[in-house]
Amino acid sequence: MPGATDTDGAAGVAPLTIAEAQAAVDASIRALGGYWPPLANLARLFEECGELARTVNLAFGPKRLKAGEVPAAARDELGDVLYVLLVLANSLDLQADAALDAALSRAQQRASQSSGA
Amino acid sequence: MPGATDTDGAAGVAPLTIAEAQAAVDASIRALGGYWPPLANLARLFEECGELARTVNLAFGPKRLKAGEVPAAARDELGDVLYVLLVLANSLDLQADAALDAALSRAQQRASQSSGA
Amino acid sequence: MPGATDTDGAAGVAPLTIAEAQAAVDASIRALGGYWPPLANLARLFEECGELARTVNLAFGPKRLKAGEVPAAARDELGDVLYVLLVLANSLDLQADAALDAALSRAQQRASQSSGA
Amino acid sequence: MPGATDTDGAAGVAPLTIAEAQAAVDASIRALGGYWPPLANLARLFEECGELARTVNLAFGPKRLKAGEVPAAARDELGDVLYVLLVLANSLDLQADAALDAALSRAQQRASQSSGA
Repeated sequence: MPGATDTDGAAGVAPLTIAEAQAAVDASIRALGGYWPPLANLARLFEECGELARTVNLAFGPKRLKAGEVPAAARDELGDVLYVLLVLANSLDLQADAALDAALSRAQQRASQSSGA
Repeated sequence: MPGATDTDGAAGVAPLTIAEAQAAVDASIRALGGYWPPLANLARLFEECGELARTVNLAFGPKRLKAGEVPAAARDELGDVLYVLLVLANSLDLQADAALDAALSRAQQRASQSSGA
Repeated sequence: MPGATDTDGAAGVAPLTIAEAQAAVDASIRALGGYWPPLANLARLFEECGELARTVNLAFGPKRLKAGEVPAAARDELGDVLYVLLVLANSLDLQADAALDAALSRAQQRASQSSGA
Repeated sequence: MPGATDTDGAAGVAPLTIAEAQAAVDASIRALGGYWPPLANLARLFEECGELARTVNLAFGPKRLKAGEVPAAARDELGDVLYVLLVLANSLDLQADAALDAALSRAQQRASQSSGA
């Protein structure tokens, strides 16, 4: 699991909290001209997820590159999905860390139920 | 923009860094029995994004609830997407904060180019 | 390949052309109150694809049903995706058979190129 | 609704039934080397839907083309999604026309219920 130990690509950067990441994404969107409506952000999420899917399929599935095609880095595609997801969170006025916290709690509950039987 | 100021739902919780979030997701997946292959995690990302799409379409589009249907909270669906995205990041051995950082840099570059004209 | 020979579930039904399928979907949408805007139909496509992804992941991947959950038939989910895709085609004023024909030609060209080397 | 009347792009082509379309897709996939596993086809569906989402967002949403970018025809993207959906149907041994027929029946039932109140 790379999150805690790998520092490649973030050397010297103070680790962002999720709330700070949402604020950075907000500043970025404002610099780009402001928020799109939620359904348009959703379409963009669909698009970025599709590019991530292509990369993962190339790396772990049977998909082969077209002649001359340069493989997009999976890291770039994952970053774009995370960026757009935080844009959507901002546009829906949602706090992503609280949302993740609740998802972690639901997962923990599923784990307790399955191991307690 | 809710990230920086809204504390609803996360009261008393120390703000998670993205790296800590990946570690928490890793612990959660291990408690649930371990990682799926990347293509299966991708299918799950598709599924969770679809549930988020449904919620956003209900809130901001023309979609109407079926009789008796309780609307899923958009926060829950967004949390599930973020959870699965971090699962996928872990399974691809990617650092999500560095990935987001690079996406923010690309967005900043686009903003500079369009405002410099 | 089931399309040409399997008659399960369609016994006694004259085989639909794709154009007739678009017309049937059009009548269906009008009976339901009319078309949504394209971005909302896209959100619905996302939702239905997510349900199909869940079913496929259950059947061919590691995903397990929750206790008490009834597996949705893959056929139903695939039918819903096809229905929404034809709704979107109608709302974009696109002829799905010509679109498929062009996709088949592109695939044929790729096949010729790879086998001709 | 273009399906029944528009003949642009399909002039002189006998209208394909959905079953014939599945057979044509099957021949195409065999010429390309055979079927991928279902989860890989799902990833490709995700990818093609993402490209369709991009096109629809460009045409009907706020998304703008990058400098120098040529807009992909929505028809091409829709054709690719339909192609991959039929690939997936074939690989799951499903008859797409029966699946669509069932989806149309479910929609008709919803229409009856809402208009009968």
